[in-house]
Amino acid sequence: MNLELALRMTEAAVKQAFREGAAISVAVVDEGGNLVSYQRMDGAEISGPVLARGKAYTSVALRRPTSELAARTAPGGELSGLAGCGFICVGGGIPLWSDYGEGERVVGGIGVSGGTVTQDVACAEAAESVWRTR
Amino acid sequence: MNLELALRMTEAAVKQAFREGAAISVAVVDEGGNLVSYQRMDGAEISGPVLARGKAYTSVALRRPTSELAARTAPGGELSGLAGCGFICVGGGIPLWSDYGEGERVVGGIGVSGGTVTQDVACAEAAESVWRTR
Amino acid sequence: MNLELALRMTEAAVKQAFREGAAISVAVVDEGGNLVSYQRMDGAEISGPVLARGKAYTSVALRRPTSELAARTAPGGELSGLAGCGFICVGGGIPLWSDYGEGERVVGGIGVSGGTVTQDVACAEAAESVWRTR
Amino acid sequence: MNLELALRMTEAAVKQAFREGAAISVAVVDEGGNLVSYQRMDGAEISGPVLARGKAYTSVALRRPTSELAARTAPGGELSGLAGCGFICVGGGIPLWSDYGEGERVVGGIGVSGGTVTQDVACAEAAESVWRTR
Repeated sequence: MNLELALRMTEAAVKQAFREGAAISVAVVDEGGNLVSYQRMDGAEISGPVLARGKAYTSVALRRPTSELAARTAPGGELSGLAGCGFICVGGGIPLWSDYGEGERVVGGIGVSGGTVTQDVACAEAAESVWRTR
Repeated sequence: MNLELALRMTEAAVKQAFREGAAISVAVVDEGGNLVSYQRMDGAEISGPVLARGKAYTSVALRRPTSELAARTAPGGELSGLAGCGFICVGGGIPLWSDYGEGERVVGGIGVSGGTVTQDVACAEAAESVWRTR
Repeated sequence: MNLELALRMTEAAVKQAFREGAAISVAVVDEGGNLVSYQRMDGAEISGPVLARGKAYTSVALRRPTSELAARTAPGGELSGLAGCGFICVGGGIPLWSDYGEGERVVGGIGVSGGTVTQDVACAEAAESVWRTR
Repeated sequence: MNLELALRMTEAAVKQAFREGAAISVAVVDEGGNLVSYQRMDGAEISGPVLARGKAYTSVALRRPTSELAARTAPGGELSGLAGCGFICVGGGIPLWSDYGEGERVVGGIGVSGGTVTQDVACAEAAESVWRTR
């Protein structure tokens, strides 16, 4: 992950948010889970630093889109025992994979918060598409 | 618990992980719940320090394999009130018992994270078998 | 504070960092102390999310540049009792004031981390100059 | 950083501890500050998981040996304002540098705790010498 790419992904997420009529926060973290960039659109909720970043971190830490984790951590899900352990398991976080010859590994993550879950996911996917075509 | 035994248990868990094709983290804690050893295999997720250790701690704190705790802490379960308290109630944590003449007590715990839940449990059991035959 | 202005301030800080030959993190917070934007330059330290943001927050919370706070929170200083409370009292944080007719008030803050203290302060001041001429 | 190298560094630190007559904990973190390995010798203090790991993390986060940070964060030091912010600024943590062609960067850290500060530093340096000759 690098800052230039993080900002391009963020821009794509923000553009999607305008299309959706949503005010969002966008966080990008690196493979170590440490924040690379963050932007909160005017009018977006103050929980963005916690939620957007938490979704990005969680997607890296658990290597799955947070939208999948919602079901897995719900009662009856195989990861239900993770509820309350600080992971943000709501849609809007997507891990970013890269092939290093010896198999794919997660090298960062994007997290979006502020709209409906559907909007957050759409914005995160817009950012991820920048990643896929980098 | 001592370091030599912790490392032998860890080695057994890592060997099982190779068999399973999984990249895991292995934590061993003592009877006080304090970390004795930790190893994160190359390529294992960054949440290992939280999850493997958390499973080991939880297995000692609640004196049950974490695989059992998922159901007990689910809504309707007798320990449902513990949800959100930071215990990691997903399979992969196993308490280690020892007989001190005056009855058995928990003297440590092992925690594995990084594979599927089934793989984590298999690796933790491989470690536990070292404990049983110590 | 708004995102557009935060990004312009950030850009000014990053430009100054290039001049200084430093790799920095830049955080901008609003009047509530909540993060508006954050950027970590390639090669900047992983503590940037804690330190840059902490300096920005501290400058808003205590309404003084963090460079002044080092002396005030030292033993014998009037704010020595704040030591250990989590405020980051090292140069690089600057509160942003605005006149609302009824007197000035702090409406945000900028925080820079990653270079020497002198470099961090220079980068934060470059950002602040954007604020002053907005 | 990889596990094999982390374990070799740990072994060197433990050997030095035996020479010193000290019981220590040894932590190795990667460039993201996340734990790669940890070992606590029999008889070492329970604060090892906090202190050894904290020193390793701090050496990566602030890119200096923690022995240097003790002076810099003392009253009157340029980083005195960091006191109480969660960094462990006591000798025994050493950042590990690597040259990636475009200049050196910190790719991990070692932290030792449990002996006197002098002993901790000696053990960390023994580990670092493994790094330098890897």
